[in-house]
Amino acid sequence: MGYLFDADTEVTRRADGAYDAEISDRWHALSGAPLGSYGLTIGLRALAHEMPFPHPLSVSAYFLRPTQVGPAQVRTEVARIGRRMATGQTSLFQSGKERLRAVATYTNLDKADGGTQLLGHLPRSTTPPDTAFDPLDDVPLPGFSLLDRLDFRVTEPPGWLQGKPSGDPACQQWVRFADGRDPDLLSLAFFWDALAPVVLEVGETMSTTLEATIYLRRRPAPGWLTCRARTRYLTGGLHEEDMEIWDSTDKLVAQSRQLALLP
Amino acid sequence: MGYLFDADTEVTRRADGAYDAEISDRWHALSGAPLGSYGLTIGLRALAHEMPFPHPLSVSAYFLRPTQVGPAQVRTEVARIGRRMATGQTSLFQSGKERLRAVATYTNLDKADGGTQLLGHLPRSTTPPDTAFDPLDDVPLPGFSLLDRLDFRVTEPPGWLQGKPSGDPACQQWVRFADGRDPDLLSLAFFWDALAPVVLEVGETMSTTLEATIYLRRRPAPGWLTCRARTRYLTGGLHEEDMEIWDSTDKLVAQSRQLALLP
Repeated sequence: MGYLFDADTEVTRRADGAYDAEISDRWHALSGAPLGSYGLTIGLRALAHEMPFPHPLSVSAYFLRPTQVGPAQVRTEVARIGRRMATGQTSLFQSGKERLRAVATYTNLDKADGGTQLLGHLPRSTTPPDTAFDPLDDVPLPGFSLLDRLDFRVTEPPGWLQGKPSGDPACQQWVRFADGRDPDLLSLAFFWDALAPVVLEVGETMSTTLEATIYLRRRPAPGWLTCRARTRYLTGGLHEEDMEIWDSTDKLVAQSRQLALLP
Repeated sequence: MGYLFDADTEVTRRADGAYDAEISDRWHALSGAPLGSYGLTIGLRALAHEMPFPHPLSVSAYFLRPTQVGPAQVRTEVARIGRRMATGQTSLFQSGKERLRAVATYTNLDKADGGTQLLGHLPRSTTPPDTAFDPLDDVPLPGFSLLDRLDFRVTEPPGWLQGKPSGDPACQQWVRFADGRDPDLLSLAFFWDALAPVVLEVGETMSTTLEATIYLRRRPAPGWLTCRARTRYLTGGLHEEDMEIWDSTDKLVAQSRQLALLP
């Protein structure tokens, strides 16, 4: 059975070891251009073919130039293969120009042992309550094709969407694929970028990711993901945004941090 | 006037474009081996020669193998040079094996414009009070040569050092170079790794960094740095550690996040 996320991130290995891919118009951000993490996911699918372990554990991506709808090429490189972990690199090119570069470590998370202590606070709830609603349901956002791919839920409408930024650059939202595809580790390396930047709540209008590092902490259970994001420091037109992603069984499955630039 | 940190991170460009360096025994961690961020700093000094902007802004490092005292070679690559930012990559080799790989974006932070909003909380104080003391003053730690290079101050002795982990994996410490060298951006990409991991406060005995990303937010003023670290999630033998570094004028100068593995 075919899900769009899988079809649209497919890569084909060529004789020279590079991979061919196609950036579709189905994963556009609010800006009307492909979401940065969509191209990253394509790069990671290629790299996964070269790694002897199944699960991405840490991914650090530098977004060098915007991606565009159309053909793309991915080149990968293995940096080190160890007993429990392997590290490699993936670069996505379009028209001969490098669009993004990521270094990533892979492992087998099913074999991870050692203690677990959750010292942070759980989100309020990891499944949407009956009172939750779709924050973007009535909002006309032409070109923002991502909205047709994902379901979002919030308990309270974001202030920025009502023209009244709350002053608190934070949010908690539920998200899932609209076509019923369950989340996996690869999709967590995509979802961190799917929410509106929380600096919209302090009056900013957009933000461009320069770098993002995602730690994949656990394979997510089927169902809704809970995304909790926060920005603490905005200095000289730059800000970080941290996100935690929790699965439907109240387990932390990913952490991301990005550095982004205001226009 | 020569400071040890500058002498011990020096790189020499070779005819083939690579750089030669020497890892000294003066920057050893508690483990008795060179601190990971010491090798990173050498890699960044080489990369800085290839970048048209003076200041590292974001650095993502993967620590592939431990470094050792002795000769090292650094290979750099430019990924993209833009109008305001440039991104490149640096790899440090010893005995033909890649020890660490980092991707980094450089800019000119003196030309950064745009708003500043500090939404996080300032540390309690950015200069040590009269009651502060050196936490490691009376502790015999042979091989831990870093202790001779840096001054540390705390207001309260860490629980782990007294054999009574506090249960709260967090700390705040002041740090500076012992020989009077003032902090700069390059040294911030070193200092994030200079404190004991805060998981010692939940009974762990050591921790190995797999990946670290450091955002350099501002050029630090002379004087003490205040480092504030916290771990929130320890799962399957892995944990993140976040650090903020503040300068002596109460400005946030760096943020780091690392993913580390328990033995």
